[in-house]
Amino acid sequence: MAENQSLQIAVLGGTGKEGSGLAMRWAMNGYKVIIGSRDGERAAAHAAEMNTKMGKNLVTGMGNPEAATQANLVVLSVPYAAHHATLESVKEQLQGKILIDITVPLQPPKVRTVHLPEGKAAALEAQALLGEGVKVVSAFHHVSAEQLVDPNHVVDCDVLVCSNDAEARAAVIKLVEATGMKGIDAGSLPNSIAVEAFTSVLLWINKAYGIKQSGIRITGI
Amino acid sequence: MAENQSLQIAVLGGTGKEGSGLAMRWAMNGYKVIIGSRDGERAAAHAAEMNTKMGKNLVTGMGNPEAATQANLVVLSVPYAAHHATLESVKEQLQGKILIDITVPLQPPKVRTVHLPEGKAAALEAQALLGEGVKVVSAFHHVSAEQLVDPNHVVDCDVLVCSNDAEARAAVIKLVEATGMKGIDAGSLPNSIAVEAFTSVLLWINKAYGIKQSGIRITGI
Repeated sequence: MAENQSLQIAVLGGTGKEGSGLAMRWAMNGYKVIIGSRDGERAAAHAAEMNTKMGKNLVTGMGNPEAATQANLVVLSVPYAAHHATLESVKEQLQGKILIDITVPLQPPKVRTVHLPEGKAAALEAQALLGEGVKVVSAFHHVSAEQLVDPNHVVDCDVLVCSNDAEARAAVIKLVEATGMKGIDAGSLPNSIAVEAFTSVLLWINKAYGIKQSGIRITGI
Repeated sequence: MAENQSLQIAVLGGTGKEGSGLAMRWAMNGYKVIIGSRDGERAAAHAAEMNTKMGKNLVTGMGNPEAATQANLVVLSVPYAAHHATLESVKEQLQGKILIDITVPLQPPKVRTVHLPEGKAAALEAQALLGEGVKVVSAFHHVSAEQLVDPNHVVDCDVLVCSNDAEARAAVIKLVEATGMKGIDAGSLPNSIAVEAFTSVLLWINKAYGIKQSGIRITGI
C-alpha cells in the first residue's frame, strides 16, 4: 500500500467511460487518482459522482494541465481526434513522467478495417510529439469501456504493454494488475503498431460473430 | 470426404517445416496435397519422405508452377525474401484460384520489433501483385513450425483469417479446422497488417518470458 500511496495517477479524459473505469479500479486499490478534463468543473463534478458511486472520497477532478502537474504518472484516455491537441496542452507537465497512452487511432466510419494513422501508431505519434523526456507506454487498447464500468467484472482479456523503456513497462504491468487484468510485456513502442491496429480486428470479430466484447489472451506463458 | 477429395491443395515452399506440417495435417484429413518447391526433384524426394513418415502414399511433389497448375487452392509458405519472386513465378497459374498466404514479413535481424513492409502487409503485396483474379487469403501467421511438425500435437492458438472475399474466408476457415485448429473470421485483407505484425509481438513475448511457443486466443466468442 505504501507504494500505491506514493503514486499519484492522473487520468486525462477521465470523464469518459474508459478512463472512469480504469480510475475507479485504481482508486479502489489504494492509488491516489485525479480525473482530468478539458473542463475542470466537469472533471470535479464527475469525480464527485464517482466518489458517491464508490461510497468513499477517493478521487478529485480538475483541468488536464493541473491534473498532469500534480500527478507523477499520467493516463491519456481521449478519442483519437483529440489526441494531438490534448498532448500539446500538457507537453511541459509530462516531462520526466510516464504517460500511459490508451488511444486507439480508429478512423470512423470504417473502424473494423485497419487504417494506420500517419505515424503508424498513436503511441509513436505521442512519443514523437512529447520527446524523449517522457516515457510513453501504450496499453489497454483491447478492453472495452463496457467491461471496465463495473469494477467487480472480471475482464477476459490480457493487456499488452509496449514502451521503449523497460522499467516503465514493468511499472505499467503492475498498474494493469491493480485493475484486475493480466499485463504482458509486449516489447518496444513500434510493437504498438500491431497492438493498436489489432483493435480493428476485434471490432470486426464482434460484428462477424454477433458479440460485444471479444478480447485476446496470450497462450503459452 | 467427398468435398475434401475434390479439393486439390498445393503447398508452395512445402519442403519447409511450416508448409510440411500443414500439408501433413491436410493429407491425413483426406485432402489431396501436392508439395511444391523451386526444385521439383527436391519436392518429389520430400513428398516421398513425408509418405514414409505417414505410412501412406498421400502426397506428391513437383515444381512450384506445375503444383500451382494442378491445384485449385494454393498455399504460399516461403520466407518473405522469396515472397515476390515465388508469386511472380506462379502468377498465371493462380488466376481464378484461392491463394492462402502464410508469409510473415519479418525483416531480420530485428524480428521482435514490428517493421512493416513497403506494402504494409505481405498479403496486401500479394493481392496487388496477383490482381483481382486471385482470391488472396492470409492465415496461420502465429503458429510456429515446431507446433505443426507432430500432426497429433494440439496447437493452443487460434488462426485469424483475412481476405476481401467472404466465401474465400469461409473456405479457409474450414481448412484451418482440418488442421485441428480454430479458424476465426478476421475481416478484410487490410486487417492482415495487424495480424502479420502481431507475429513480432509474439516473438518478443517468447524471448521476454523465456518460452518457445506463445500464441493467441480470441475470447468472448
